[in-house]
Amino acid sequence: MRIEYKLAELGLLLPEQLRLPPGVFLPFPWVRVHGNRAYVSGHGPLNSDGTLAGPFGKIDADVTPEQGYFAAKLTALAVLASLQRELGNLDRVTAWLRVFGMVAASPGFGTAPAVINGFSDLILQLWGPDAGSHARSAIGVAELPFGIPVEIEAEVAISG
Amino acid sequence: MRIEYKLAELGLLLPEQLRLPPGVFLPFPWVRVHGNRAYVSGHGPLNSDGTLAGPFGKIDADVTPEQGYFAAKLTALAVLASLQRELGNLDRVTAWLRVFGMVAASPGFGTAPAVINGFSDLILQLWGPDAGSHARSAIGVAELPFGIPVEIEAEVAISG
Amino acid sequence: MRIEYKLAELGLLLPEQLRLPPGVFLPFPWVRVHGNRAYVSGHGPLNSDGTLAGPFGKIDADVTPEQGYFAAKLTALAVLASLQRELGNLDRVTAWLRVFGMVAASPGFGTAPAVINGFSDLILQLWGPDAGSHARSAIGVAELPFGIPVEIEAEVAISG
Repeated sequence: MRIEYKLAELGLLLPEQLRLPPGVFLPFPWVRVHGNRAYVSGHGPLNSDGTLAGPFGKIDADVTPEQGYFAAKLTALAVLASLQRELGNLDRVTAWLRVFGMVAASPGFGTAPAVINGFSDLILQLWGPDAGSHARSAIGVAELPFGIPVEIEAEVAISG
Repeated sequence: MRIEYKLAELGLLLPEQLRLPPGVFLPFPWVRVHGNRAYVSGHGPLNSDGTLAGPFGKIDADVTPEQGYFAAKLTALAVLASLQRELGNLDRVTAWLRVFGMVAASPGFGTAPAVINGFSDLILQLWGPDAGSHARSAIGVAELPFGIPVEIEAEVAISG
Repeated sequence: MRIEYKLAELGLLLPEQLRLPPGVFLPFPWVRVHGNRAYVSGHGPLNSDGTLAGPFGKIDADVTPEQGYFAAKLTALAVLASLQRELGNLDRVTAWLRVFGMVAASPGFGTAPAVINGFSDLILQLWGPDAGSHARSAIGVAELPFGIPVEIEAEVAISG
């Protein structure tokens, strides 16, 4: 439980599972495991009780880039919580492979990568430069679900 | 041919291959098979003759969310038609892994997931909760090709 | 070095590694290798010295679709340069699997596929119709980093 220990050392708590807004039904899992891969559904930032974490809206209009960086870090914690629930413990994630970061961008916002660094920086802090290394894209999209400013999906390698 | 039987039971027909709008040339296949994986290119909703199915435009402005849900279901049928053409029969799809749903969103449209459920619900109805389970993201994008309201790409595991 | 030979025959040079704009730090690699897969981060068009290549802005407003096609070809060369640096030589790429093309779209721009063909056409010219074949999506997004008009990520199969 090396990763869980590092999280505790950093004083970081994993949030509860997402509590969907009323009336929303999502028929898919947060993590899909198949063989030595786990495919991670698009996650957003969560409060510790599993409710969606604000501020909501578009980066640069409603949410500052710095708040966006923090939202990406909260999104990482939500992803780790889902992986832990599915895999039992996070040491089973042996390699990060692909991260796709989507930012709700106000017109002209061209620094989505700096926002998504909030996700990548934490993954690298926890897994180190080898296992934590990942291919990444970070783009500004028109609309994210429920007004969240950041959504991130990923693919990781896992041990049996 | 368990999946094809279920489709017939549901009264669902798979469309013909996409007839591209005049002057459009796409140099890639609809399904790329490699080893035990099939990568599915971005598909849109089709009529049974392979022409792009309307209504066209942005969800919430030109296309209602309910029409969007139905467009996502038509997109699932288009994907299944491509997989059947490539694989011979759909039972060779042994596990759905990743679904990426893109919705042409009018400003402020925040419920892309409810639209893309039109895809996921049919996949789960046909493959069941284990093989049909898939990681998913659903986002609102600025512009989709040819004015289609929904585009979906996927990755599935296949048997030899 | 069959691919490198074809590039030379075509008179195409691979650019130097991306020189990031001042103040930008990206904590991830351009290519993530794991087992028999290489995951390619989102790339944009580069000049031969590794600086981002203009014209910048949205396709159809600031950049013509023809310039967009050329930007997608430059993006292919940037991707090949990253793969060559990581793998030693490009013949180790045994199969293209998935290409995801993102175009910075001005409102109403519906032909992102014709732009991303600038990437696919070169890949198919170099690898041929079997190894070069790839599943693809091409969409118009709200904002790409640093004003680039095209960004492309990919997944390829590699030999050991």
